[in-house]
Amino acid sequence: MTAPGATAIAGLGLTDVGKVYDRTAGQFAAEAVRLAVADAGLAMTDLDGLLVMAGMAKGVNLELADTLGLSDLRLLAQINTYGATAAAMVEYASMAVANGSVSAVACVFADTPLRPGASAGGAWREYASRGASTGFASLRAASGLSSAAAKYALAARRHMLRYGTTSEQLGAVAVSQRQWAQHNPRAQFREPITLADHQNSRMISDPLHLLDCCLVSNGGAAVIVTSAERARDLAQPPTYVWGWGQGHPGYSWHRGSEFGLVTGAVQAGRAAMKMAGITPAEVTIREIYDCYTYTTLVTLEDYGFCAKGEGGPLAESGALAPGGALPTNTGGGQLSAYYLVGMTPLIEAVTQARGHGGARQVDDNNVILVSGNGGVLAHHATLILSPQPG
Amino acid sequence: MTAPGATAIAGLGLTDVGKVYDRTAGQFAAEAVRLAVADAGLAMTDLDGLLVMAGMAKGVNLELADTLGLSDLRLLAQINTYGATAAAMVEYASMAVANGSVSAVACVFADTPLRPGASAGGAWREYASRGASTGFASLRAASGLSSAAAKYALAARRHMLRYGTTSEQLGAVAVSQRQWAQHNPRAQFREPITLADHQNSRMISDPLHLLDCCLVSNGGAAVIVTSAERARDLAQPPTYVWGWGQGHPGYSWHRGSEFGLVTGAVQAGRAAMKMAGITPAEVTIREIYDCYTYTTLVTLEDYGFCAKGEGGPLAESGALAPGGALPTNTGGGQLSAYYLVGMTPLIEAVTQARGHGGARQVDDNNVILVSGNGGVLAHHATLILSPQPG
Repeated sequence: MTAPGATAIAGLGLTDVGKVYDRTAGQFAAEAVRLAVADAGLAMTDLDGLLVMAGMAKGVNLELADTLGLSDLRLLAQINTYGATAAAMVEYASMAVANGSVSAVACVFADTPLRPGASAGGAWREYASRGASTGFASLRAASGLSSAAAKYALAARRHMLRYGTTSEQLGAVAVSQRQWAQHNPRAQFREPITLADHQNSRMISDPLHLLDCCLVSNGGAAVIVTSAERARDLAQPPTYVWGWGQGHPGYSWHRGSEFGLVTGAVQAGRAAMKMAGITPAEVTIREIYDCYTYTTLVTLEDYGFCAKGEGGPLAESGALAPGGALPTNTGGGQLSAYYLVGMTPLIEAVTQARGHGGARQVDDNNVILVSGNGGVLAHHATLILSPQPG
Repeated sequence: MTAPGATAIAGLGLTDVGKVYDRTAGQFAAEAVRLAVADAGLAMTDLDGLLVMAGMAKGVNLELADTLGLSDLRLLAQINTYGATAAAMVEYASMAVANGSVSAVACVFADTPLRPGASAGGAWREYASRGASTGFASLRAASGLSSAAAKYALAARRHMLRYGTTSEQLGAVAVSQRQWAQHNPRAQFREPITLADHQNSRMISDPLHLLDCCLVSNGGAAVIVTSAERARDLAQPPTYVWGWGQGHPGYSWHRGSEFGLVTGAVQAGRAAMKMAGITPAEVTIREIYDCYTYTTLVTLEDYGFCAKGEGGPLAESGALAPGGALPTNTGGGQLSAYYLVGMTPLIEAVTQARGHGGARQVDDNNVILVSGNGGVLAHHATLILSPQPG
């Protein structure tokens, strides 16, 4: 078993994000890796591994190695487990580094869903219609279940009916994350919002308002995973990888009796915390995959940060916001900062671990939990990170 | 570092292969996993990991978990590094098992490129035209470099020009592998061929004749990776994983001065043999990724089974054939048995390790090398397997 803290994230690269139209997804990906390599104080030729998040972005593939001039890699693959991929890539890279197969692995994602003049709805239309012509997917489409928002709306409604979660409690997540985003210079949305703004924002898919939904962003992000020992000699304070875990209830879950009530965070979190040798009470910062406000809530419950069904009251209490007892999504998350499919919580976690959070820095950054969620709760991955070697 | 022999391949599943038109790729994949699980003496619910080879086959994706009723997985991803993926999946699964993240991982590939009444050329037309409309790819297409055969033809010609390799020496590989295939009941082509048959077979892309080229097959294959300890309690003799390695010169290689002369097998083989603690001389069986006869030759050289450029004379000597000093592609390989993109050498390696090779069984099966090659020599992965715990 890999020892907790045997590997570390030594480099971080985040391109311009948002309505950035002058670069392809492939160019964003290359730029993100270059930024991460430079950030670590490495040369590009120091990389001997490259993991590329596949499955969502077009034009980001194994040819990225050539774009970057990497012609002697010992690990190279496209990986896809949707929104859980970012955490899964760090896990894979950590195992390969700990195994001695490679010494420095870049993990990268980039995408350009936004087009000039097109609404996000237009850019994502292909997603909505994917596979809708046959079988079960056609029934889903005929029922209007043709977008992620529609599916998450069902999940959120289920949570409301079972646990009494309210729209205002979901709104508290949006308000809290926007408070964090105000202090994140990389956030796309930094203007403060109120609960009334949330309630008055237009309905996207009942019960999800516009301000319950994540952004859509063009951009790229990358991290460099290396050994703890090597990371200590590099340019940035190391972010040690203490633990990881995955949980995949799968798509049949969508038709099951527990859909919307519980996620793979239960299994993924348990495994990651066991490896790290910690309990939920020891986590000081939570970076939760937040495609919707609901996702933040249900995931916090499943990790054990509150009792099952108590995510709503927890958010309402202000615990997740700046100054609260359970700082959560401290960069504004995917709701307010930018949406880079699982890289968003990871990038913020490393920023906090380094103490580079500026006005939003959390004092106690000792144990940071990162979550990834994909395929509408079908896939989950967790990392436990820390500025301490363990 | 993972100890050599810490993990093992405990299950093997191979569906009907070839002109099998009654199943989709997704159905082949599910069937292959079910066969592998049954072969191991496991129940489906014993699986907690699933790796799916992506990038080539359509209709084989993460939904396979649901098809198989797997709703509590701790590792689930699509992986792609083309023809090197099969070996890379076993490497990834072994690291995850050795790490304690999972206990039993199925690694699966399936594809259905053949259609009733269509030529293989028809089925693969999409491959040929992929990305041909813009940039460098359009120049390649305009030059006729629109198929894998055309690219490998250039590589093979380069090897001929530099090292004096002849078409007859390539033919010796085809003849040798067909000799092995005669004793493989799962092989699509078992009729003996002569060197004259090879020379008289029609030219596909000069210097590659039809009998220099691999088959195209519908079908699916899967293996189950678990801990060495657990494998010893299961239904089949364990095939221990002694070592692994990867080498990725990448696509820029195609334009480089060494193209066709050397491959990533140099780096991948060195790493795998170092981990296994062996030298090339200790390998008793070679299962080499053989999309073309040329690939077998150049890969054998790069692993150090002969001096550089001596692959042709080696094949001509009969060393690779049944009864020869260096048994190679003992099931007939992808040239004569079936083409399942890297699973073919892996499946035969496990068959030989178990001593289940029947009339083609090699007496000394102590150290088996498995190779994967993808992206026209851009990607390479190697495994060292053995029936001995190490």
